[in-house]
Amino acid sequence: MRISELARAAGVPVATVKFYLRDGLVPPGRATSATQATYDDSHLQRLRLVRALVEVGGMPLAKVRVVLDVVDRPPADPYDAVGEALAALPPYVDTAPPYGRATALLDALELAYDENVTAVAQLDAALAGLEAAGRPLDVDAARAYLHQVRLIAEREVASVERGDEREVASVVQDVVLGTVLLEPVILSLRRLVHAALYRERHPRR
Amino acid sequence: MRISELARAAGVPVATVKFYLRDGLVPPGRATSATQATYDDSHLQRLRLVRALVEVGGMPLAKVRVVLDVVDRPPADPYDAVGEALAALPPYVDTAPPYGRATALLDALELAYDENVTAVAQLDAALAGLEAAGRPLDVDAARAYLHQVRLIAEREVASVERGDEREVASVVQDVVLGTVLLEPVILSLRRLVHAALYRERHPRR
Repeated sequence: MRISELARAAGVPVATVKFYLRDGLVPPGRATSATQATYDDSHLQRLRLVRALVEVGGMPLAKVRVVLDVVDRPPADPYDAVGEALAALPPYVDTAPPYGRATALLDALELAYDENVTAVAQLDAALAGLEAAGRPLDVDAARAYLHQVRLIAEREVASVERGDEREVASVVQDVVLGTVLLEPVILSLRRLVHAALYRERHPRR
Repeated sequence: MRISELARAAGVPVATVKFYLRDGLVPPGRATSATQATYDDSHLQRLRLVRALVEVGGMPLAKVRVVLDVVDRPPADPYDAVGEALAALPPYVDTAPPYGRATALLDALELAYDENVTAVAQLDAALAGLEAAGRPLDVDAARAYLHQVRLIAEREVASVERGDEREVASVVQDVVLGTVLLEPVILSLRRLVHAALYRERHPRR
């Protein structure tokens, strides 16, 4: 397809596609003349991924590049590949292990985890913030969150085809998109439900 | 209390407290000599709020100021006050109404909403991203998210005292902290559950 068709298919202005091409975020098309090139489905997939990371994820280009590097040259184990890619996604926390608050909570919740997963550091930072704000999260409240979140995650996993036979790059791309695009859905719904509950209890006079 | 005690209570380095004081994010203490001042609980509350917004929320200082302005000079209606404060929180989307994707979905879900709530714009951006990525969110999947999110929100609301008699500023501060500090808890737990489910199905050989 031509650059204009590629841009339309991904819902991005042509100027933005040109910028991503110049910047190497999207690989060059196959030249058909001195000034024209043709693009295929692999370009469209890449453009959709970049668009989601930049526009919805709000990620800086340096972090986008880290994700693209994993997609292009993934470690052999899909679990490690996904972990590396997710580590480039926000929220960015610059704390070092040990993550005592998070690991103590996860142990109490009996959730198996791997301390290298960035979400452990993110959870630890949030727990430290809650503690510093004078409202530490107790295990019962955390267990209630985990219960609902587990139901969400199990439904999400069930809706995806089994990954055994799939290419690692495609698994990574799916998980990254599912993280960047679905997290704001979950959070914006939570904010909207809070607003609706508030209005029910306190009607505007 | 002295600045060192204030800093310790909020879990922030003294140098950071001094920076926030110079920048006007935390109001000055009561001077006790030419070089010393004393701080009270209102300073501690403010410092905790600023710390959460900057360190956990990752918010730029300009947006932190917007939240503080609402806390200091809140609109009379707590709902409006909360809406103004939450509008300064990430994720930042720079799209203008109408938010047709979000409103169509919310209507289908029969969730009451107010198009001025920033979460409508955030939801719309996420839905547009999903669509552009070739994986539009169907109403059934959205309904499943809403169901779990509603259970989360109802539990959160039940755990907070009724707001009828409370000062608007204190309600705003609570909602802002509950948003900035609990959202990363929910999201990091989701990422960790996904990692645990993956490992269950694909043990490392």
